[in-house]
Amino acid sequence: MNQQIIQVAGFSNSGKTTLVEKLVRLLTKEGYRVGTLKHHGHGGQLTSTDYGKDSWKHSQAGSIATCAVSAGDLQLTINREQHWEVDELLSIYCKLPIDVIVIEGFKMAQYPKIVILKEEKDVTLLSKLNNIFCVISWFPLENEKKMQGIYYFQIDEESNYTNFILQKVKGQDNE
Amino acid sequence: MNQQIIQVAGFSNSGKTTLVEKLVRLLTKEGYRVGTLKHHGHGGQLTSTDYGKDSWKHSQAGSIATCAVSAGDLQLTINREQHWEVDELLSIYCKLPIDVIVIEGFKMAQYPKIVILKEEKDVTLLSKLNNIFCVISWFPLENEKKMQGIYYFQIDEESNYTNFILQKVKGQDNE
Repeated sequence: MNQQIIQVAGFSNSGKTTLVEKLVRLLTKEGYRVGTLKHHGHGGQLTSTDYGKDSWKHSQAGSIATCAVSAGDLQLTINREQHWEVDELLSIYCKLPIDVIVIEGFKMAQYPKIVILKEEKDVTLLSKLNNIFCVISWFPLENEKKMQGIYYFQIDEESNYTNFILQKVKGQDNE
Repeated sequence: MNQQIIQVAGFSNSGKTTLVEKLVRLLTKEGYRVGTLKHHGHGGQLTSTDYGKDSWKHSQAGSIATCAVSAGDLQLTINREQHWEVDELLSIYCKLPIDVIVIEGFKMAQYPKIVILKEEKDVTLLSKLNNIFCVISWFPLENEKKMQGIYYFQIDEESNYTNFILQKVKGQDNE
């Protein structure tokens, strides 16, 4: 993709953000798809408030992708038409210095899974999802509903199931 | 990098986020570098509040990278030791459906630049930065301070400079 890049430079409080907002609005109105990148020069940690304020402004002006960066901190927002697939996201994560990725949701994905059952009727999940290694239920699960090769815990057995999951991670680590 | 992936699945309000927080805290304590990925299954638009709430929790539990996704919306936070370089960020952006990237700050980078001068003393920026094509000043700039090949505007000439910048983008577009 042949992308154009424009920088807005100047000292603090010179009106950079206001100009960026104007340009995003104008270019978007002209049919360009615009992304923005903001460097917080002070080097302090980005707080959730900073992020909301700046990226929200850019996004409201029409930016498809907004990114705030300060030293090693990055906050990126993308709003696109196409749905995100878990494998696309993992392809970003695989470049980061991370040992373990914990995914919440995306239950139809194929990765090793812990399933939480809140109510009796949730038991249907066990036959619908694959690669389940651990089930945590909020109620006593009858033995005939349990499947082989899966470890079962109740929600109040916290130290048992957290320890079990930790041992699994450590085990994989040594493979 | 050999990353492990664990999924936490279950219906809404079954306690997935609480379990993810516990696992992030535990694994981080054990010396693992953990990242999290959260799917907002409802498919609604992520608001800045949603983001703050969920990703902040994961991040507080020790997650290095947290990502909230809903349909085509993505909000990603990374906190790493190493500073982010503008070229690294652009390598993420080049994969997105974007025509124009507007960068705020990173003034030492090499891309075509608009410089805003708030005060007389800011004029030093003009000799320090490269690839400037446009200067917008909050005060009347003396002719002898102007450099050849750069277009000068005052902050109140908004329609002039926005139109000039738009024409530049359109021109590049036709090249």
